[in-house]
Amino acid sequence: MLKMVIVVNSSIKMGCGKMAAQVAHAAVECAFTSYRKNEDIFQKWMEEGQKKVVLKAPEKEIMKIEREAEEMGINVVMIKDAGLTQLEPGTLTTMALGPDKEEKLDELTGHLPLR
Amino acid sequence: MLKMVIVVNSSIKMGCGKMAAQVAHAAVECAFTSYRKNEDIFQKWMEEGQKKVVLKAPEKEIMKIEREAEEMGINVVMIKDAGLTQLEPGTLTTMALGPDKEEKLDELTGHLPLR
Repeated sequence: MLKMVIVVNSSIKMGCGKMAAQVAHAAVECAFTSYRKNEDIFQKWMEEGQKKVVLKAPEKEIMKIEREAEEMGINVVMIKDAGLTQLEPGTLTTMALGPDKEEKLDELTGHLPLR
Repeated sequence: MLKMVIVVNSSIKMGCGKMAAQVAHAAVECAFTSYRKNEDIFQKWMEEGQKKVVLKAPEKEIMKIEREAEEMGINVVMIKDAGLTQLEPGTLTTMALGPDKEEKLDELTGHLPLR
């Protein structure tokens, strides 16, 4: 089974609706980069019901996972806030990984708690 | 300016992370249907920074807005939960509209509160 993992930056405070919008930015960006890089995996993920899991981690941990994902060839996107409302411009809010095999993503993010 | 509006069903209870995942489902589905129907609008929305607003409304109101959106030719998707965790299978969780002109979407959703 394929999934997308979205990790919310727990080092900053966001309201529930704000966070949902940032998770959605990450998911859309990640879905389209995946679609362009490897349409087969993307299509399979959509057909399987586009499984998504939302986890949380401190910013340092997110940066570490980003580097590991790149080394493993996993599609990864980082979302920074434009800073128009609750946050400073350029604040990292979310990271999205995949879609990719569950086992592969669990190696990187299996230890993180649900958001 | 173009935006996407995501409306969360306030008639049901969802945790913050669960809700974020449902908002992300709606955003990805809506982005891809828009991409297939009208790539120009979609591309313009992405270039403008893929603006998204997350609002809330009771289920009845969401059903009413869905009908109005269809009459106005606005791209609309409804997300129902698979029912594997917190909700009954088939529960409506979120609706997404657009991307489309702000003024057009505000006619339909301008009266709704932020989530």
